[in-house]
Amino acid sequence: MSDSVTLQVDFGERSYPIHIGAGLISQPDCYKPHIQSRKVMLVTNETVAPLYLAKVKTALSEFDLDEVILPDGEAYKTLAVMDQIYTALLQKRYDRNSTLIALGGGVVGDMTGFAAASYQRGIRFIQVPTTLLSQVDSSVGGKTGVNHPLGKNMIGAFHQPQAVIADTDTLNTLPDRELSAGLAEVIKYGLINDPTLFTWLENHIHQLMQRDPAALIHAIERSCADKATIVAADEKEAGQRALLNLGHTFGHAIETGMGYGEWLHGEAVAAGMAMAADMSHRLGWLSAMDDQRIRQLLRSASLPDQPPSLGAETFLDLMSIDKKVMDGKLRLVLLQGIGQSIISQDFPFDCLQATLSRY
Amino acid sequence: MSDSVTLQVDFGERSYPIHIGAGLISQPDCYKPHIQSRKVMLVTNETVAPLYLAKVKTALSEFDLDEVILPDGEAYKTLAVMDQIYTALLQKRYDRNSTLIALGGGVVGDMTGFAAASYQRGIRFIQVPTTLLSQVDSSVGGKTGVNHPLGKNMIGAFHQPQAVIADTDTLNTLPDRELSAGLAEVIKYGLINDPTLFTWLENHIHQLMQRDPAALIHAIERSCADKATIVAADEKEAGQRALLNLGHTFGHAIETGMGYGEWLHGEAVAAGMAMAADMSHRLGWLSAMDDQRIRQLLRSASLPDQPPSLGAETFLDLMSIDKKVMDGKLRLVLLQGIGQSIISQDFPFDCLQATLSRY
Repeated sequence: MSDSVTLQVDFGERSYPIHIGAGLISQPDCYKPHIQSRKVMLVTNETVAPLYLAKVKTALSEFDLDEVILPDGEAYKTLAVMDQIYTALLQKRYDRNSTLIALGGGVVGDMTGFAAASYQRGIRFIQVPTTLLSQVDSSVGGKTGVNHPLGKNMIGAFHQPQAVIADTDTLNTLPDRELSAGLAEVIKYGLINDPTLFTWLENHIHQLMQRDPAALIHAIERSCADKATIVAADEKEAGQRALLNLGHTFGHAIETGMGYGEWLHGEAVAAGMAMAADMSHRLGWLSAMDDQRIRQLLRSASLPDQPPSLGAETFLDLMSIDKKVMDGKLRLVLLQGIGQSIISQDFPFDCLQATLSRY
Repeated sequence: MSDSVTLQVDFGERSYPIHIGAGLISQPDCYKPHIQSRKVMLVTNETVAPLYLAKVKTALSEFDLDEVILPDGEAYKTLAVMDQIYTALLQKRYDRNSTLIALGGGVVGDMTGFAAASYQRGIRFIQVPTTLLSQVDSSVGGKTGVNHPLGKNMIGAFHQPQAVIADTDTLNTLPDRELSAGLAEVIKYGLINDPTLFTWLENHIHQLMQRDPAALIHAIERSCADKATIVAADEKEAGQRALLNLGHTFGHAIETGMGYGEWLHGEAVAAGMAMAADMSHRLGWLSAMDDQRIRQLLRSASLPDQPPSLGAETFLDLMSIDKKVMDGKLRLVLLQGIGQSIISQDFPFDCLQATLSRY
């Protein structure tokens, strides 16, 4: 464990560690302090199970283990599929002191987390994210939930894990496209409030693309720390937490408009950040050079720097059902510079229209 | 509103009023301070809607109202039926500042509350309980949720309402059997820690059975206050809150064993309290006279004072899947006197067996 770091995240009454490093999923000591009773249910999916489930089971061999293997993909992030977790818990008579372990990407983490939040009104869970996106995004903030046919992530709960175990070795089996999608969120943290991270990314994007462990650990740690700083100040997303939605209002519209699964979440967020940059430049808030730096970094990470051609009208329609709409008024996260994001609902509608019409 | 009282309930960061009185559902002022945006979704069922929905709509006529009318009955307290609420909220584009109003009994309250807890990870809701059971039980404690085919109330969340409006006039349309079922919970509060309430009930049971408004207001207020005292000390049910399960471990076994809907919840709890009294008497903790007083009061309220003949083995099997089982060890709420309940997992198994075998 020489190449690992631990970040402690504090939320009001609750605090938990994020362990980041190579080979951690095989370390019993990462899990054991966070398990209360002997009963531990492992939840994963059919892609991740053959790769990593045996390692986790070996690490936890002293416990009474059960497992649920879900189908893989955002299309299965539904109440109906989540019911498989409830059913397994009830069939095996899991009580309130039991523990769930989420082994997989964001979909597994969100569903397992919501199952933990709602089974018997709340049991404990440990997150073992195996994608870069879930390591930098879902590890902090306690957001759990499922999709609804009428909207993404519309049903869920805030529920903090007992611990997060982010093993960079699991990224070696990640498809290139998913690695890039994860980097989109890392870039996002640079844009929101961490210009030092943004510059570091400009200088280390090739190491990251080559999955250099030390670079990955740094990027994950910095992203989680940045997110924790924002979230800790605002656990319930009343104010500053909305900054984390940079690129997401546009991004969700892209995902919904294309149908879930066509674009990866991170790809949609990347295009959404490019759109936010474009709009910020039109508002005179962001220089042409910074707009260019953003697009360049996205391209270096093999990410899209523009959305698909949905048309302005479709975009507007898709955006108005988004969670970020407050009482009918659209709020967007925009940029006043790299590392200087703001929440705004005070922009000329023409500017939004111009950005949407560009594509 | 001369004949009404307001009880303030405090839970950590959250506090809310319970208004109790005749005619309150028609009073706009009971609702208005608790609604944030113009969008208000009324959730009720097909039995309650024709009786009271118009009154609530008139009281809230200045808001943008929508409604969801669910089928009536415990059998419909499921994730699938709850999805009707999510769908309506999404179709009508309800955002995070919207308000849900639950108009009906415990099933409507629990489902609407869980929908509010989980829609966009939490929106506000107001409870308008129209049964005695829901007025004295669901008004306090923030428990929301649905049933699972494998267990009652197994999926849910803790989510406090913004306000509770308990209108005693709505009890005039309540079937006799449901009035009695509600009184079972009132009797429970007397048994748990309020001997004064128990004695008052012995002296006023006939007024309550005749639906005397003043007697009802007193019984509801006292029950809510008693429950609030217990819950406030222990919002997450780690300790003393389990006292509220007096009669419930046996009662849930009866409900599950008979199939949901055969016995009303309150009837099962009444029989469960009689079983707890029987067992407490066998343990030498409760006098024969107090055991008799309990049975007598249950009978005066037209409630069962014994369970159906399920057989000891079936009972044990049904009880071991109950939420109150801690890590495999059965905990029961028993009586050391009227108004003196305790949580115990330290009793001879023979005593439990003897009580279960008696019926």
